Amino acid sequence: MPEVKVNLGKRSYAIIIGCGILKQLGGYLTKLNLGTDAFIVTNNFLKNKYGAKLSCALSCAGFNPHFKVVADSEKSKSIQTASSVIKDLAKFDRKRKVFIIAFGGGVVGDLSGFVASVYKRGINYIQIPTTLLAQVDSAIGGKTAVDLDSGKNLVGAFYQPRLVFSDIDFLKSLDREQLSSGMAEVIKYAVIKDMRLFNFLENKHKEVIAGRTSVLETIINSCSKIKAKITSGDEKEASGIRTILNFGHTIGHAIEAAGGYRGYNHGRAVGLGMIVAADLSRRLNLIDAKGAARIENLIKLYGLPAKIKGLSMDRIIQAHYHDKKFSGKENKFVLIRGIGKPKIVRNIRLDLIKQAIARIV
Amino acid sequence: MPEVKVNLGKRSYAIIIGCGILKQLGGYLTKLNLGTDAFIVTNNFLKNKYGAKLSCALSCAGFNPHFKVVADSEKSKSIQTASSVIKDLAKFDRKRKVFIIAFGGGVVGDLSGFVASVYKRGINYIQIPTTLLAQVDSAIGGKTAVDLDSGKNLVGAFYQPRLVFSDIDFLKSLDREQLSSGMAEVIKYAVIKDMRLFNFLENKHKEVIAGRTSVLETIINSCSKIKAKITSGDEKEASGIRTILNFGHTIGHAIEAAGGYRGYNHGRAVGLGMIVAADLSRRLNLIDAKGAARIENLIKLYGLPAKIKGLSMDRIIQAHYHDKKFSGKENKFVLIRGIGKPKIVRNIRLDLIKQAIARIV
Repeated sequence: MPEVKVNLGKRSYAIIIGCGILKQLGGYLTKLNLGTDAFIVTNNFLKNKYGAKLSCALSCAGFNPHFKVVADSEKSKSIQTASSVIKDLAKFDRKRKVFIIAFGGGVVGDLSGFVASVYKRGINYIQIPTTLLAQVDSAIGGKTAVDLDSGKNLVGAFYQPRLVFSDIDFLKSLDREQLSSGMAEVIKYAVIKDMRLFNFLENKHKEVIAGRTSVLETIINSCSKIKAKITSGDEKEASGIRTILNFGHTIGHAIEAAGGYRGYNHGRAVGLGMIVAADLSRRLNLIDAKGAARIENLIKLYGLPAKIKGLSMDRIIQAHYHDKKFSGKENKFVLIRGIGKPKIVRNIRLDLIKQAIARIV
Repeated sequence: MPEVKVNLGKRSYAIIIGCGILKQLGGYLTKLNLGTDAFIVTNNFLKNKYGAKLSCALSCAGFNPHFKVVADSEKSKSIQTASSVIKDLAKFDRKRKVFIIAFGGGVVGDLSGFVASVYKRGINYIQIPTTLLAQVDSAIGGKTAVDLDSGKNLVGAFYQPRLVFSDIDFLKSLDREQLSSGMAEVIKYAVIKDMRLFNFLENKHKEVIAGRTSVLETIINSCSKIKAKITSGDEKEASGIRTILNFGHTIGHAIEAAGGYRGYNHGRAVGLGMIVAADLSRRLNLIDAKGAARIENLIKLYGLPAKIKGLSMDRIIQAHYHDKKFSGKENKFVLIRGIGKPKIVRNIRLDLIKQAIARIV
């Protein structure tokens, strides 16, 4: 079974990837000395569909499972929901040692990781990501957070899980939009770091879209390795290595924000952001028109939009200048010098940014 | 001006101690590259009494100060208040870099430090402690937290300030109870680590109680050094070195909890807890009766109670067994083998604990 390591000294952990591996979970957990009482944060759909199986895998290994259900919505990433989870956790936390299982997608993972980071100044938690987006991205790297009205992810911590357990079986319950949303981050990894993966995504798109296990395993394995390597080199986003993960995210975040987080979901917004970033790379002569077109085509191939409906350029530009990553008067974009070759570019002229956005609105 | 260093690698910081040093604050802050916008968390009393002076010290050095007032009560150490502080902070946080100033006692320090640790996954903060308790103890060491209904300090982080700025001038506004409450922690440091300080406290008690600056400076300097040294060796309470700081706190916490946090304040409860710990040390033949009596006398000398009113032994014992520091079936006490010689003792017989508590109820 593929196993990827995130190397962070005492805070190192493994990412286990496989299909139908849930029954082996107990064995992995037993080795980690996490505690005996498992506080599982999840949503109703997942609890109904997989709750019994997960309970069984835990009970059989001697753990005492308890479910805490939160709404399956970005709204659950709030201080209020975190507070409610913490209160239930404190009630469940008796004399034996408690740990948290984040069982769900990005919302559950970010919320649970944040709760684990602050409860008793930090308790153990593991990630069992159930969406493609979470398996390749949000469950790895310890960035936990909840949102404020004034912005996403404004309250949080860098706090690493003790294990990431990616069972491809869970992806079978995803609809097409959830899958293509995850594929946006997969394409991002390929563009910034992995030409082989890029070719693979071009060649195997039909099998990926059909959800074939072997190709999904290759994808999750490749992306986990990239994310693990980048995280290991820059745990707290201090050295700048982690910045390249923001390819497509500068304008992607602006599109999400401009739509009040109701228009374009994260993956679709990042897809559009990557088209803009590729086009900017072309306008700055970092790549040629053929390279930019290849990226745009791959994004379309996975059912992600290449055009925005219902959002003006002005609103996107305005949202961009409110982004928390925009510091002072400088803008900062992750562009590319070719597939697999990221380059950070500062202070791009506003008219160039506008021209690149004009192509997608 | 005495300056004590907390050595924690990249997270090292200085503790500045002096009298009437507020006007020099700007100079210290400028060197630290904290940001330009100072978000000051404080209470109404302190804002009215020192707000103008503090604003002036900051503005003159080019900082932009903004006050956030919270109630002067343990109730402010809640998720709700933290959430309100965070929301105001996000409103104040514009394009320039923001940092937090915790201007107050333990409540303000613990709350502000926690907010600093989670806002944008951690921003700079400094501590300007205004009570004796905060100057010698809570402002140093990076233990930040808020309370839950089910227990104190259950939500928090280990997050170090960039500076601790202890101006003895602030202690002049303390009443006798606040001063004696702080002295309980001072006596604790002397008992566990510093025979010279213990003798000093015995000899100079009249001058201390009268609030003479020079003796207070000696005390704050000695205690800061001890806390800094212990913190440097065990930042996250992992190695056990920090455990000795809990001398008097095992039963002290139980007394606070048994009284519903309304009966005995922290200092008075710790004073009583130290009498129990000294008596337990005697009962286990670690110290003689004379040594135990010397500790009890010093506690009384500073106006701290030696007897409990309105709390039964049973309620204290019950609260003790609910303490979060009580893990599994084992109890753990910090006792002493003499002044300045701490010793951790596990599994003390319940009848011995009861006998020691019986002396104070």
